[in-house]
Amino acid sequence: MERLDLLGAISEEPDRLTRQFAGEAMRRADHAVADWMKAAGMVVHHDNIGNLHGRYEAETPSPPTLILGSHLDTVRDAGKYDGPLGVMAAIAAVQRLHDRGRRLPFAIEVIAFADEEGLRFSSTYLGSRAVAGMFDAADLDRRDPVGVTMAQAIIAFGGDPLRIGEDRWRGRLLGYVEVHIEQGPVLEGLGLPVGVVTAIAGQARYRVTFKGSAGHAGTVPMRGRHDALTAAAEFVLAVESEGVSHEGLVATVGQLSVYPGASNVIPGEAALSLDVGHPDETVRIGGTRQILERAREIAMRRGIETAAELLSDNPSVPCSAKLRALLTGAIEAEGLTPVHLASGAGHDAVPMSSLTEVAMLFVRCKGGVSHNPAESVMTEDVAVSIAVLGRFLELLARA
Amino acid sequence: MERLDLLGAISEEPDRLTRQFAGEAMRRADHAVADWMKAAGMVVHHDNIGNLHGRYEAETPSPPTLILGSHLDTVRDAGKYDGPLGVMAAIAAVQRLHDRGRRLPFAIEVIAFADEEGLRFSSTYLGSRAVAGMFDAADLDRRDPVGVTMAQAIIAFGGDPLRIGEDRWRGRLLGYVEVHIEQGPVLEGLGLPVGVVTAIAGQARYRVTFKGSAGHAGTVPMRGRHDALTAAAEFVLAVESEGVSHEGLVATVGQLSVYPGASNVIPGEAALSLDVGHPDETVRIGGTRQILERAREIAMRRGIETAAELLSDNPSVPCSAKLRALLTGAIEAEGLTPVHLASGAGHDAVPMSSLTEVAMLFVRCKGGVSHNPAESVMTEDVAVSIAVLGRFLELLARA
Repeated sequence: MERLDLLGAISEEPDRLTRQFAGEAMRRADHAVADWMKAAGMVVHHDNIGNLHGRYEAETPSPPTLILGSHLDTVRDAGKYDGPLGVMAAIAAVQRLHDRGRRLPFAIEVIAFADEEGLRFSSTYLGSRAVAGMFDAADLDRRDPVGVTMAQAIIAFGGDPLRIGEDRWRGRLLGYVEVHIEQGPVLEGLGLPVGVVTAIAGQARYRVTFKGSAGHAGTVPMRGRHDALTAAAEFVLAVESEGVSHEGLVATVGQLSVYPGASNVIPGEAALSLDVGHPDETVRIGGTRQILERAREIAMRRGIETAAELLSDNPSVPCSAKLRALLTGAIEAEGLTPVHLASGAGHDAVPMSSLTEVAMLFVRCKGGVSHNPAESVMTEDVAVSIAVLGRFLELLARA
Repeated sequence: MERLDLLGAISEEPDRLTRQFAGEAMRRADHAVADWMKAAGMVVHHDNIGNLHGRYEAETPSPPTLILGSHLDTVRDAGKYDGPLGVMAAIAAVQRLHDRGRRLPFAIEVIAFADEEGLRFSSTYLGSRAVAGMFDAADLDRRDPVGVTMAQAIIAFGGDPLRIGEDRWRGRLLGYVEVHIEQGPVLEGLGLPVGVVTAIAGQARYRVTFKGSAGHAGTVPMRGRHDALTAAAEFVLAVESEGVSHEGLVATVGQLSVYPGASNVIPGEAALSLDVGHPDETVRIGGTRQILERAREIAMRRGIETAAELLSDNPSVPCSAKLRALLTGAIEAEGLTPVHLASGAGHDAVPMSSLTEVAMLFVRCKGGVSHNPAESVMTEDVAVSIAVLGRFLELLARA
């Protein structure tokens, strides 16, 4: 927890926590984290994208590797736990092995990923995509808000942008396990410190528009109107209703704009965002289809036009049954009730799933708040997560 | 119609019609209109606020006066008829008297008001408020978007801002009659060229806010949400439903903003405009009360906060029974079916009603469109309005 406080103070901005990919604050954070890795008996190196790796060798030569990790970058005005908690928990678990002089039949590689949030270049998972061999070289031409290209930023940070492809993991792997704050209220509601993630929910994002007819709010009678906002309002409620009607489905309209947007003008156009997520692809795709069908039905009944544009579609990522079972056993071994829950947010485990089996351990966070300085976890819960991770390593060693 | 086309080309902007209070385009428009007034036998003068008056004397000395008029200013990117049509119809009616050498037992004062839309100083009815003695001297300190005060603008246009009070009408009046495009679809729906206005609807404007809790759209389950936008959406539909359920009531949400407004964040706050109008104060006030009650009921049920701030409240203005009867008789004398309809928009007749009895004759406009270059009226309908106004003058002379 002291280390998390210390990292929380390493920021690019004076009064709030902001730590971007390959920035000066990231360099300082990496410096501190590298020292902690070394103290835990790890051999440390940076890869070309800027991920910090700490390797704790196995008891035997040429062993398979288990990767533990999370990210060190943050959103703007961030909390202290989203990302760094997973790196600190992994180092703490290795530290406990090291303190006992214990080696396992597999190596542990702790990776502090250089970019998960995508703040600097509007491109998420840069770190884990590089390790998974999914880095897109076209991204090197992206520019940050002050005009620096990603290639320049990588060079300044000490990497070689042309050799990122070589950093794809090539050895034998047992899996990737990530500890992360829940970013939701489920564990808090259940009164449990940790939970095992079943899957990382798939998520689709659409832009939905309604086009009616603008008109004078005083002179056009109610019955002759083709109000784009009342249609959009009906759709917002349809989205909510569809979300509520399927367990685990989340369906959200987070943006809504009205044109022309004057108090005395009937809205001629409304545009809104639609975000639908569910860990089960069948439910997610079916729910999305029903929601979009409702948009057409509402528009037709009201005599206005509607259109839906797909902006992104990320399939869900199921967690490894084997690794989940081991995490469950580890929780039980700690005398706690194991609970299984889906992750509604994306994580480095998503790209890593293309490389190896993945699993995640969620830690209860206050009010489900994240991406906000109010992010908060309890020391006891973090202790539980480290203990569970330690038990997991021992169970995996015996598996 | 030629004159309206000509005025429609007198603009401050190259490719669209914009004619502000006391601007250069207004000076040129006044120059043209003054010539037409003179040609119709009128004596012309400007008052201090910048209204252009044309007086057609009576057959006797010290007669009472009937005021005819409308405004010459426009909104930005305006149509050609909202305002100027009423001035041109009045001049045309006087022209017909003048052509026949006909004098009436009352004088006719045609007033081309200098500001009804309020574009330049965000203050409506400057022209008619001055004539009605309702000008607020505090407005003289208002600044236009480039920093010119209203007092400076008035001086530059040739008026004396300190003497606007003296321009309040002091003589005997028979009333104020205004011809105006309907700005709504009622006459077009009935297939009639003109209609008699019963009242100018009262209108209240509120800012309504809903405050819930923001949260991650992927991780906060549907049932634990306090989504401000879904509450606002329910309210938008309640507004529509209340509007539809009372004949003549118009209830509109024209603006809606969502905070923080990211596609993957549950809205924590929504703010919207509410605009409610009805010619009958009892219906308007009762309807508004019910709508605001719905906001509270929705917020309470959803466990979120709501507040409503009254921004403006303009009571309805009934038109004179006597003048309406004469307009009705004039329409019948033209062989047409007289129809009576309320005005949903405000007009110079509103301030003028504090000075004298008022009446309005609406002219059918295409699609009910106004405040838009697509504003359109038929030549035959304008001819009808001039003929009806002429008949009205004769009926009033005999009354």
